[in-house]
Amino acid sequence: MSKLVLYDFIAEPGNNELTVKEGETVTITNQVNLYQNSSSAFLLPLLELHLRNIVVPFLDCLLTQKCTFTNINDEQILIFKEAGTRAEDDEWDDEWDDMKSTGGYAESESGESGAMQRGGAHMGEVGPVWSYPESQLDCVVADPKKGSKMYGLKSYIEYQIVPSTTNRPVNHRYKHFDWLYERLLDKFGSAIPIPSLPDKQVTGRFEEEFIKMRMERLQGWMTRMCRHPIVSCSEVFQTFLTYKDEKDWKTGKRKAEKDETVGVMIFSTIEPEGPDLDPVEVEQKCEQFSRFTKSMDDGVKEILTVGHEHWKRCTGPLPKEYQRIGKAFQNLSSVFTSSGYQGESTLTDAMTAAGKTYEEIAQLVAEQPRKDLHFLMETNNEYKGLLGCFPDTIGVHKAAIDKVKEGDKLVATSKITPQDKVTMAKRVSIMSYALQAEMNHFHSNRIYDYNRVMQLYLEEQVKFYETVKTFLSAISHSKLESVLFCCLIISTIT
Amino acid sequence: MSKLVLYDFIAEPGNNELTVKEGETVTITNQVNLYQNSSSAFLLPLLELHLRNIVVPFLDCLLTQKCTFTNINDEQILIFKEAGTRAEDDEWDDEWDDMKSTGGYAESESGESGAMQRGGAHMGEVGPVWSYPESQLDCVVADPKKGSKMYGLKSYIEYQIVPSTTNRPVNHRYKHFDWLYERLLDKFGSAIPIPSLPDKQVTGRFEEEFIKMRMERLQGWMTRMCRHPIVSCSEVFQTFLTYKDEKDWKTGKRKAEKDETVGVMIFSTIEPEGPDLDPVEVEQKCEQFSRFTKSMDDGVKEILTVGHEHWKRCTGPLPKEYQRIGKAFQNLSSVFTSSGYQGESTLTDAMTAAGKTYEEIAQLVAEQPRKDLHFLMETNNEYKGLLGCFPDTIGVHKAAIDKVKEGDKLVATSKITPQDKVTMAKRVSIMSYALQAEMNHFHSNRIYDYNRVMQLYLEEQVKFYETVKTFLSAISHSKLESVLFCCLIISTIT
Repeated sequence: MSKLVLYDFIAEPGNNELTVKEGETVTITNQVNLYQNSSSAFLLPLLELHLRNIVVPFLDCLLTQKCTFTNINDEQILIFKEAGTRAEDDEWDDEWDDMKSTGGYAESESGESGAMQRGGAHMGEVGPVWSYPESQLDCVVADPKKGSKMYGLKSYIEYQIVPSTTNRPVNHRYKHFDWLYERLLDKFGSAIPIPSLPDKQVTGRFEEEFIKMRMERLQGWMTRMCRHPIVSCSEVFQTFLTYKDEKDWKTGKRKAEKDETVGVMIFSTIEPEGPDLDPVEVEQKCEQFSRFTKSMDDGVKEILTVGHEHWKRCTGPLPKEYQRIGKAFQNLSSVFTSSGYQGESTLTDAMTAAGKTYEEIAQLVAEQPRKDLHFLMETNNEYKGLLGCFPDTIGVHKAAIDKVKEGDKLVATSKITPQDKVTMAKRVSIMSYALQAEMNHFHSNRIYDYNRVMQLYLEEQVKFYETVKTFLSAISHSKLESVLFCCLIISTIT
Repeated sequence: MSKLVLYDFIAEPGNNELTVKEGETVTITNQVNLYQNSSSAFLLPLLELHLRNIVVPFLDCLLTQKCTFTNINDEQILIFKEAGTRAEDDEWDDEWDDMKSTGGYAESESGESGAMQRGGAHMGEVGPVWSYPESQLDCVVADPKKGSKMYGLKSYIEYQIVPSTTNRPVNHRYKHFDWLYERLLDKFGSAIPIPSLPDKQVTGRFEEEFIKMRMERLQGWMTRMCRHPIVSCSEVFQTFLTYKDEKDWKTGKRKAEKDETVGVMIFSTIEPEGPDLDPVEVEQKCEQFSRFTKSMDDGVKEILTVGHEHWKRCTGPLPKEYQRIGKAFQNLSSVFTSSGYQGESTLTDAMTAAGKTYEEIAQLVAEQPRKDLHFLMETNNEYKGLLGCFPDTIGVHKAAIDKVKEGDKLVATSKITPQDKVTMAKRVSIMSYALQAEMNHFHSNRIYDYNRVMQLYLEEQVKFYETVKTFLSAISHSKLESVLFCCLIISTIT
């Protein structure tokens, strides 16, 4: 397949890029890593986001609709003049072989993936907002089960996911979530921050604690995706949640993999109801949001740092100290018991009880972080991930605005027609609708999430202090008061 | 003054002792450090208690009433054949010059100090107990005032002491307490543990915190002395508490300094009401108490070690961490406030309140040890001091018992007469009455003190957890619940 290069591109040394010039021809072999230029091709690192070089051709394509572009993998993208074709996915890793699609590139299916879901945005009280579905999708990730294949040679963990819409469970392994993540990132990543999945892990994958933690984080990730009106309505997401059988899943999977409405193309599926947005205001909003996400990122990281230290103290030295206090009380109590002196059993009972209580407090202290700090940390961790996605999204947007600003100059030098300029402005307005709707979606979710986590944290903290208080006052009142009374009598009588 | 040496004494190298033989003559100069043997004298380190060498001559003196002995200072003791004379006290240190006694050794006053208070002991339910006075003496140490002398060149702190008996305040400086301590140690040290005074301190003596702490410890020491039926009734202690004017104090002071009923002589002032004690039982009791005080010493030291560490954590890293948590919440709250998004002030108010609360908690945590751990530490510190006195007291006793056990052998070899043996047994019985009464006094005080301090500790801990709980639930309920409610509505409506 030979393709025409649309724009000059100067490769940066060490980035695995090729320098190509407008008018050159790109030849594509079937292997991702073997894309070659018959003296001309370009492979753009997307995730590293060399915005200076990439975004402009990117956006020109989009804004003037003169080209399409194709993600090859996470890191590389090709731009072609005509409606392009897409390369086959990387070989699924070893674990994927059980469900590997039939393989090979089926040209005939290409056309089918054109069907798109249209996302709506309208003016709300806070500015542009997404059109939210009437009932919010939700799902429960639960019941992790060990499965095996290849006559037991390979083991894996399968999670059950039950969507609120069908109430019918589907099963997925971590790698399926990872596959979904990749699809969502390809498709929506330019407009919507798609947070990373919980980390892959090689060792300890089958330990109960790890499985529980991963499940909890997959649940968090799925909940966030479910809450998003654009993501949750997408065909790929629905397929993941509601496939009927193996065949259905395979078909949906293949279709999603061939979807061409990915990258900045997603903006073409957004239909804002409302007038075009004022570019100056848009730029200000964008700046403000950029500053906000940066500060929030700092704030979130601060909480994570402090929380991590506090976690260590609460599960390490602090309970150890309470334990030692408890032991010291009990030890002194048993020394007292050995005195041979009459009538001090009430005191020694109380001291032993106090000692045991401090050992219980040690336990409470050590267990507490899992009850409150855990969710505070998890939420902030999720937000750290989300916030990490914004600089890219905002970067694309800023570059688009800059391009529109150049509009008059481009018309004057005949680089684009006046009609092109109008189209560009229209499209930037759509992008701004999307970004602002996303900003508002982020804000309302943030308020909801932080409110929930703060309330949970404070409630659990209150419970903790209440429990410790109750434990301590049980000894303080029932035992010692009577002893003190006795002692005073003895000491004044003798 | 030449005195005859009664027993052979082999000096241990490096102990500042002199080897003397029975029949040698001791010459005494007027300076403690210049006691010399005109080839013969012995200076026995008492506090280091080289029991092998010292106690036997000691007790022989006492048991057979063939000699008297004189404390020279804390570390040295002289034994003479005839009723001895006593050396002058060390020069008072610089601080003492305002009240220095006329000085010089007044031979004529020597006889007057013979007046003794008789201490009673009788059989109680728990065995031998002291006869306690009908109303217990108490005193309040308060109102530390800075005084000066030598035209302001020298400053000192004077404390006011008000005894419950007269309700009339007397003033004393630390060095007066120290003088009293020395007198009590000389007089009662063999039978009654006299705990050390709070440490002397050269720098920072006039800092408020130090003065407060010293006053509190002097109060603790005085309270313990007041509680002791033998100590509190002694002339020297009464003089200290109730002197009428400067002249009265000086007279009393001189008299106390010449008191010859010191060291093991104190046992001769004790008149037990009851039958002689069974030596085997006495030995068992003594052994048991010895083991007990050793274990309690370990237990007390363990509490002090753990308590010290806990104190450091509670006043250092822990509140710093709560402060950082508080700051992190407040910081994130102010980031949220900058979002420009409408309707999150309830959340940010709650987060700010939570942040401030954690700063308050930091304060509470840091202040808490002064409210509870402090008294636990002070009490255990006092007991550590008290327990440190027991090995000497018990050592004297054990040696006395051993001596009585040798009685038959000594009679057989004509070292003592059969009448001497009877006298020895009688006197050991008196010592045992005293030791057991002291043991029981110690036990009852211990129960009272530990009960009080445990109750105080637990009550203050309960208050602490209650306060923190109240602080936290104030935010958790009033602020966040309504926010959560609002959020849920917004999130389902939009």
